Amino acid sequence: MTPSATPAYRRLSVEERRSQLLTAALSLFAHRAPEEVSLDDVAEAAGVSRPLVYRYFPGGKQQLYEAALRSAADQLQLCFDEPRTGPRLTRLSRALDRYLAFVDEHDAGFSALLQGGSVVETSRTTAIVDGVRRAAADHIYSHLGVRTPGPRLRMTVRMWITAVEAASLMWLDDDKQPPAAELRDWLVEQFVAALGVTAGRDPQTADVLAALSGDV
Amino acid sequence: MTPSATPAYRRLSVEERRSQLLTAALSLFAHRAPEEVSLDDVAEAAGVSRPLVYRYFPGGKQQLYEAALRSAADQLQLCFDEPRTGPRLTRLSRALDRYLAFVDEHDAGFSALLQGGSVVETSRTTAIVDGVRRAAADHIYSHLGVRTPGPRLRMTVRMWITAVEAASLMWLDDDKQPPAAELRDWLVEQFVAALGVTAGRDPQTADVLAALSGDV
Repeated sequence: MTPSATPAYRRLSVEERRSQLLTAALSLFAHRAPEEVSLDDVAEAAGVSRPLVYRYFPGGKQQLYEAALRSAADQLQLCFDEPRTGPRLTRLSRALDRYLAFVDEHDAGFSALLQGGSVVETSRTTAIVDGVRRAAADHIYSHLGVRTPGPRLRMTVRMWITAVEAASLMWLDDDKQPPAAELRDWLVEQFVAALGVTAGRDPQTADVLAALSGDV
Repeated sequence: MTPSATPAYRRLSVEERRSQLLTAALSLFAHRAPEEVSLDDVAEAAGVSRPLVYRYFPGGKQQLYEAALRSAADQLQLCFDEPRTGPRLTRLSRALDRYLAFVDEHDAGFSALLQGGSVVETSRTTAIVDGVRRAAADHIYSHLGVRTPGPRLRMTVRMWITAVEAASLMWLDDDKQPPAAELRDWLVEQFVAALGVTAGRDPQTADVLAALSGDV
């Protein structure tokens, strides 16, 4: 009996089984492009039979991929949760540390998803990813104490979030160089610099920036 | 005889006909998501029969979409061409003016493509879009006189290009506000600010920034 086959012989609740299958799927999607992962691979990684995978995900790979993505998106959103204490740029640094650890862990799956063009990409998977971006922006506004971000502040925050995604993809491509802590500091500085540029044309952003500087 | 039917009665060369069909397709893709455009729509817009569209694009809508995208990508890359005279930030401004005019013109098609999740998106369409991003980065390095960009400069330029895309999408969503000229100046300033942050950790970027400041 190989260790990976063990879970098949344990009695798991429906929720435990589902979560076991999602974990196996996520770890496969993390190392290979979605199109290179088969349901057989998932069954094998979870140490269960293919019919059992189908019982939980009758929609097959597409359904399993979407469920795994939804689960990864939920995990990723947890990264953004940060207590409302201490200087706000320190909070941003801590959230970025968790985000980069997530990127590090999910590696190829993260790239495949964000780079698009995957055969399992649909408007639903795009909506899940967009939901994460929106959640990231909302966390930022909330920590900044901004209830109604104007168009210029929104554009600045969204540009920075997209730039962080681009940096994460290049970071994975560049064998995770520079070290995560250096990348994190660099991204925080980019955030402040971007706000600085917008502050010159938008009073709301100028207020936010002033509050950040007074934070230390 | 309606004006739109006229071209059907002119003798066009194969190249002219192909280009006429691509122009019709591009203008439809510019205002609707690719999945909402049918081959009948393209035939009608070009004033030709459906079989004629199929004769030129036997692969149907997917082939037509990819050809239209390739043609739009070629147009977009032309935007980046800029004579090597005058201050480099002025050159960047002019290239951005042309880029924003392109975004303005292609509107919904541009959004659909970059936002992903379209039913006609494939690894080939993604590769076309990535080619445009790479071309944009190469133009920037070439104007900056950088032959071999190091990882930090590359990351900074790529982050900025992605941020410009994000800004373009929000600009389309926000009824093209702020005015293109203001957005363009803002994007140029963001570029300089991003280089400024990286210059603190990378001598190559510091040199580039010094050269830009001496440019005026």
